[in-house]
Parts: sequence; C-alpha cells; structure tokens
Amino acid sequence: MTERNLTMLTDFYEFTMAHGYFEKGIADRRAYFDMFFRRVPDGGGYAIMAGVEQLIEYFKNLHFTEEDIAYLRRCGCFSEAFLNYLRDFKFACDVWAVPEGTPVFPGEPLVTVAGPMIQAQFVETMVLLTINHQTLIATKANRISRAAQGRTVLEFGSRRAQGYDGAIYGARATYIGGCQGTACVLADRDFGVPAGGTMAHSWVQMFDSEYEAFKAYSDIYPNNCVFLVDTFNVLKSGVPNAIRVAKEMVAEKGIRPKGIRLDSGDIAYLSIEARKLLDEAGFPDMQIMASNSLDEYIVSDLLMQGARVDSFGIGERMITSKSEPVFGGVYKLAAVENAAGEIIPKIKVSENVEKITTPHFKQVYRLFDNATGKALGDVITVYDETIDQTQPYTLFDPIHTWKQRVVTNYTVRPLRVQLFKNGECVYQSPAIDKIRDYCKAEVDTLWDQIKRFENPQTYFVDLSKKLWSCKNELLEACRI
Amino acid sequence: MTERNLTMLTDFYEFTMAHGYFEKGIADRRAYFDMFFRRVPDGGGYAIMAGVEQLIEYFKNLHFTEEDIAYLRRCGCFSEAFLNYLRDFKFACDVWAVPEGTPVFPGEPLVTVAGPMIQAQFVETMVLLTINHQTLIATKANRISRAAQGRTVLEFGSRRAQGYDGAIYGARATYIGGCQGTACVLADRDFGVPAGGTMAHSWVQMFDSEYEAFKAYSDIYPNNCVFLVDTFNVLKSGVPNAIRVAKEMVAEKGIRPKGIRLDSGDIAYLSIEARKLLDEAGFPDMQIMASNSLDEYIVSDLLMQGARVDSFGIGERMITSKSEPVFGGVYKLAAVENAAGEIIPKIKVSENVEKITTPHFKQVYRLFDNATGKALGDVITVYDETIDQTQPYTLFDPIHTWKQRVVTNYTVRPLRVQLFKNGECVYQSPAIDKIRDYCKAEVDTLWDQIKRFENPQTYFVDLSKKLWSCKNELLEACRI
Repeated sequence: MTERNLTMLTDFYEFTMAHGYFEKGIADRRAYFDMFFRRVPDGGGYAIMAGVEQLIEYFKNLHFTEEDIAYLRRCGCFSEAFLNYLRDFKFACDVWAVPEGTPVFPGEPLVTVAGPMIQAQFVETMVLLTINHQTLIATKANRISRAAQGRTVLEFGSRRAQGYDGAIYGARATYIGGCQGTACVLADRDFGVPAGGTMAHSWVQMFDSEYEAFKAYSDIYPNNCVFLVDTFNVLKSGVPNAIRVAKEMVAEKGIRPKGIRLDSGDIAYLSIEARKLLDEAGFPDMQIMASNSLDEYIVSDLLMQGARVDSFGIGERMITSKSEPVFGGVYKLAAVENAAGEIIPKIKVSENVEKITTPHFKQVYRLFDNATGKALGDVITVYDETIDQTQPYTLFDPIHTWKQRVVTNYTVRPLRVQLFKNGECVYQSPAIDKIRDYCKAEVDTLWDQIKRFENPQTYFVDLSKKLWSCKNELLEACRI
Repeated sequence: MTERNLTMLTDFYEFTMAHGYFEKGIADRRAYFDMFFRRVPDGGGYAIMAGVEQLIEYFKNLHFTEEDIAYLRRCGCFSEAFLNYLRDFKFACDVWAVPEGTPVFPGEPLVTVAGPMIQAQFVETMVLLTINHQTLIATKANRISRAAQGRTVLEFGSRRAQGYDGAIYGARATYIGGCQGTACVLADRDFGVPAGGTMAHSWVQMFDSEYEAFKAYSDIYPNNCVFLVDTFNVLKSGVPNAIRVAKEMVAEKGIRPKGIRLDSGDIAYLSIEARKLLDEAGFPDMQIMASNSLDEYIVSDLLMQGARVDSFGIGERMITSKSEPVFGGVYKLAAVENAAGEIIPKIKVSENVEKITTPHFKQVYRLFDNATGKALGDVITVYDETIDQTQPYTLFDPIHTWKQRVVTNYTVRPLRVQLFKNGECVYQSPAIDKIRDYCKAEVDTLWDQIKRFENPQTYFVDLSKKLWSCKNELLEACRI
C-alpha cells in the first residue's frame, strides 16, 4: 500500500495555480498553510486526530511520473518549463502536525505546511483528504466506544464503506479511536488492526439445518465458536441449536463455545431472553454479540434498557460516520515571506464570519492542571512565542474577550510535532497500538462535560494576546 | 489502478467460511448469491447502478500472493491444504450484473454470482463494497444534476471524500450519474472524467491585491478565466476587480473571461447582484459559478429564488452523499445445487420482515410501453422463465397480490448482462461517456412521478407467479 503514488490525486486548480506561481516567478516564495476545522461532527466536544501516517507516506512518495507529465501536456495549458520542473520535483517543505490519537478542537492548526509556495499549495487536496477522512472516522469510533461503556466494539463496516480506502483506512481509524478490532482482513495484514469473524447467514443456509451448520462450525473452529442465531428464529431455533451444540462440544471435546451473535430483531429483548436461555442451560460464560445498524445512540439506548450485550459489531454507521459523514477541514494560507525573509501574516475574510481565518505562522500549546491532570485549554500563539509554566497564564476567549481565566500550577505541552524538515522526514509514526493507547490516555485528560454526546461544554481554544492583536489588525486593515 | 490487488480486502469470516466449506468437502458445490438493496437512499424513487467496471477488474485480479498466504498461516486457524487451495486459486464463477448507468430498484438482483460455494461466498465483501459505493454516489449525482435543470454540475469534493478511492471512484460515479466534470485530476487521467479548475482563495491572497491576482491569472490563462470573487467582499471588491480585468483583457487581447465563482455568502442574493454588475459592465456572457455546501435541495431552492447561477460546483454533499451516506446493498444466498445438479432455492427468514430474501436463481426483465417508450415495471422471474411480449402480461404486487395490472403492447428487455462465464470475462465495459449517455436515456424512460425527490411513486418490481409461489412455499416450510 505504501508504494501507491497518489501525487495526481489533487484538484485541477492546484496545477493551474502551481503553474501560475511558476510562470510569475514566485514559485519559491515561502508560504505557510494551515489545515484546521470549524466544528466537531455530531455536535461533539472534540475530534480525534488521525491519518498522519498516511500523510507522511504521501509526502515521501510525492513525484510525477512520465505518464503524469504526458497527461498534463495533453491538457494544453501548461508550459514545458513547468513540466520540467515537475519532472525534477523534490519535496522541500517543513511540516508540523498534531500526533494521531490526540483530541483536537475547532480552529487549531492540525497540520502546518511551510515551504516553496508552489509545493505548499499543491499538497492541499491530499492533506485535507487524508486527515479529514481518518479524523472523521476515529472521532466517530471514539464516540461509539464510549457509548459501549467498556464493552468490546468491533468494526464490521467494509461492505458499506465509501470505496476501498474507506474500508481499509477507516478500519485503521476506528482502532485508533477505540475499537478493539475489525472484520477487515487487509487492515490486519497491512496495519496490524486485529481482524476476526466467524460466520454469515449463508453458512447456516448452506447446510440442511441450523443445527448441522453450527455443528460443522464447532468441528472446525472449536476454539472460536460464535454462532449466528437469527437465520430462522432467534429464541425458538437459533439459541436452542447453539445450546445443543455447546453441550455436545463440552461432552465431546471439553471445549465451551465463545458465544452467539444477534444480527436482527429487537436487540434489547432478544439479548435479555437469549441470556436467560444460555444461563439456564449452564452457559453463563457464553457471550452475546450484537450487530445491526448500531451507533452511539442505539448502543446507549440498548444498554439503558438493560440489553445483555457483551460486544458490539458496528458497521455502516461507524465506517461512514453516517450521522455526519463529512469532516470539514480546510487548508488556508496563513502567511508568506517577503523578499527580506520576513513572515507576513495573511487573512481570509468572508461574508460567513466563521470562514474568517486566523493569520500567521502559529504554534499550539495545551495546558494541563497539575492537581488533576486534566486539560485546562489550548492556546494558539505566534510561532515564536512560548508559555512559561512557572508563571500564571491568562486564558481569554478570542470572541468574548471579557471571558478570562488566570491559570496557575499547570504544565504546558506543545501540541504538535515536526514531521518534515526541508522535505526530509524527521518523524517516526508510533505503532498503531501505541497510538490507540495514547488516544485513550489523552481522552482521559478531558473533563466529562467535554465528552457529552449532545451539548458538550466548549473546550477553551484561545489565542495569545500577540496573535489576537495580529488578527484584529488585519481585519481592520481589510475593512471595505 | 487496475493492477491493484484487493483480494485481501474482505471480511475475516469469508475466510473462516471458505476454509469451513473446504474442510467439509462442499467447497465445489455450486451456489447462487444475489446482491440487492432494500430501499433507495434519500427516499428517492430509483438508484443508478455503478461500479461494474471495477468489479470486473477485481474478479480478473483475484489471486492470493505468498504474502497473503503467509499472513493467513500466522492466523493459526487454517489448514495447509486450504492454503494450498488458495495458492492455486482460479476464479471460476458465472457473474451477471445490471449494466452501469441503469436505473435500478429495491429487491432486484443487481449482481448474481454462481459458482463453487467457496468462491461465490468469498467475493461477498468486494461485490458489496464496490457496487454499494459507486451506486450510492451515482444516485446522488443524478438527483443533484436533475435539480440543476440542465445547468452544468461539476464534482468538487475530493478533499472531503471518505478516503482516496472515495474521491477517485466517487468522481467516476458522479460523471455516470450526470455531472459534466470533476476537479479530481486522477479521475481524468485514469477514467477520462473531464477535470477542470482555476484558482483558490490562496491564489488571491498570494498577491498584493485582488486586482493583481486576477490580472496575473488572466495573463497566464486568458482562455480559461473564472475569477474567485469572495476572498474579501463579493460585490464591493471581487466583482468590480473581475470586471476591471475583463475590460483590460478585451482591450489588450480581445479575449473575454469565462466568468466568476462565488464560494460563500448568500448565493441567491449575490448571484443576482453580481449578474446585474456584469451585465451593466457589458459582460452578459460571463458566467456565474456557485459552490459552498450545495446539494439537490439547496440547488432547487436557489433556482426557485431566482439565483442567476450557470454552473454548480458540488463538493462534500455529493462525494459522500451526505444526507444519506450508505447504500445498503446485501449479498445473500439464493440457491444451491444438490449432488444431482438440481437447483435448490434457499431463503433467509428474519424477525425484520424486510430482511426476508427472495429465493432461487433469478432473471430480471424490464417492460417498456411501446406507445410512450416509458418503463412499465420490472419482473423478477425464475432463471428459466421468459416473457412473451406478443402476449398480454399480468403484473401483480408480490405483497398486495390483489393489485394487478395487465399490460399489452410492450417490449421486454432482460435487465442484466453476463460478465463472467466459468471465470472468464465475457463483457467489455463501455467507455464512460457511453455509460453516461445511456444513463441519461434510461432515466428518461421513467415517468416523472418516479423521479420526485420526495415521496416518489413506487415503481413496479413484481415477481413472476412461479417465483412468488416458490418464495411462499419456502416461507411456509420454515414457519416455526
């Protein structure tokens, strides 16, 4: 997968602009672009950063083949000098990003690309596509995992994903967000997301009876028996047949099956009744797995109604983030350097106030309360600012500036790491299990009120005084 | 792209079942699987079939590499005999499918795979993933294109797609569904979907003024000038600067710019006002393009309010089918052959009535009224049935069987084509422009009431008497 060249997966205007900068002789002027988002999907309190590893692969593989050059020549609007530039293209940017698994908030620069204008502009589409997708799915998976209150959550959505990569990288993102595994084999082979699965309805139908189907399965996989019990009738046929085979397994092999799976009907009612049958038959250890168009809301409701479900298989509503299938990250120019090497902050104004950008080359810090370990808030600063944690720091709301809070006894941590320096990769992605553990630990630093599914408290993402002043001066300057 | 081996993009249970059939000595028993869906996304009246070309590529490339075998061996639950079978795997199935671009309806077998049980089962995940994704997006694109009432619709969604393939194959599907082009370069290079684009806000910001940015663009692309006018203020800055540069272009080069693009604010108001300014300045031929989170509902509303938009750039809401991002296709066993080579129909019952399947190896016919050319309805039959169009035919509703209609003077057409015969491809996908034209022509055979966005009339999809009887006998037989 890492060999795939996605250089041409870009919007056509990236080429018209790149060629334009080239022709105007400003291709090498240093520019700073930020990727950020404006609101959390599903009205949640935070998102989970994901996709950085794939973004790194993209930057590493960025090059134009002769086939690409030939295609561009056929477009008829690019100069030969520009095509030659592309042929010799070498990525030369600096890149910073928030590590995967980190809870992130609207307005924060999740990724910053700084380098020759022609390059920093060109990568826009892939930065957005990569981070938007995986962050969307990791965020959804984190919600669903929390709804399951410690029960196992597995990703089952490949068949309903939006394209092959939607399934593969989606499975990766759900694991980062908190799932324990996936049904997707490729995600296991390539990324080490544990894959598993047992039987579909067709297995049951393929035999002359449900009993024979379960029996055959128990012969082959005595140590991994999860019987799908809803092909005919859960309580009158499926569960009794599962129990019959379970008893035979115990008698013949001394092995107990793992459990049953419900894939239709009322999961609350059926799981409670199935639990009784299993318990009465002497199989309190057989687990009940449920699948069938579940998401965080249905999982919460089922548990509130006393459903006896031990693990959830979550399909289409997680792999597509069905209730909100778009992560609206954008990639905006934040600054350019002038001929003297000075950084000139840039702003984009808009009729839609929420589309106004925060200018300048920036840094992001997260402040943690030393007494509780909880995150107090994030501060976005100009790149050369630091926060001295030995001194009190005044957080203030960038819109309602009278809302201020002085914090003391805190630890400050830069939220981002550098991925590339002059085009060279200087970062090694952690193993996926490490990312997943880190995600869990970082989410634990958020107060519960930030984690509500509906109407969460807004986490502080403030600007430093210097950055706030810079933004307001630019806004004043472009008032028409 | 066609070289990519997606054999391992499958659910883990496809392997446990395949291995199970292998171990039980029934791997080569012939089985028939249907892919079908249960409801049209967005409550629409029909879906647009898409993804067949990629499905063909998948079947052609289906094989297991040594790396795959090694991975499976590490899983620890598969026999060496089975792994050897996979090493020598050769696709040997028959496959039928509805051609891309065809309007399709719930309950119809869009794809049927018949062959050795172990194979016909194994391909489930990829059949579903491929057809579900592209059909979803083609269906959405068809809705949005119809909402635009003949105006140009372009696909702009790569950056918000769900993964790389979501962008690439999504762009392909939108073209089949009715879009005129895409921003996605790779979709042009690999599939011939016309790509285009001009400038982003960053281009405008990169220069010292909006005027200079437009001027620079007109120098380089005099024949393809679409100015993005909302970086600062549409009516006070963007449009006046566009007009200024347009006048200079006419004076200096004798070339007129193509138009302007609005990407924020109230598109209805801004387009009407911008239209006045352009007309008054002597540029009634400059077109207005609009983009900004549009879909079929907003496009319809804008046009109803008199918006003066000539073309729409549609992003996230089309490439993800945001309002309903899942196409719920399923893949179910319909029949198996017994040792004597007789086809034994199979049914799956369910507590959820809509999840009950229609058994048997089937054929689908579409009946067209000779007087109007309009589609009268579809009939699903047992595989060996034909419909004699010289005789009246009685359509009847499979649920409300008293609803009957006798049709005469009609033409009957099998809805599906054979893609593979004993594993050999016997079908050549049409060029994408042909698919797109065919789609338009086929949608034109549907009555308007089927095409309403909300509450469309239900198109007839009936069962033949023979198939209906078969289904009901099986349902009776498995009543518990």
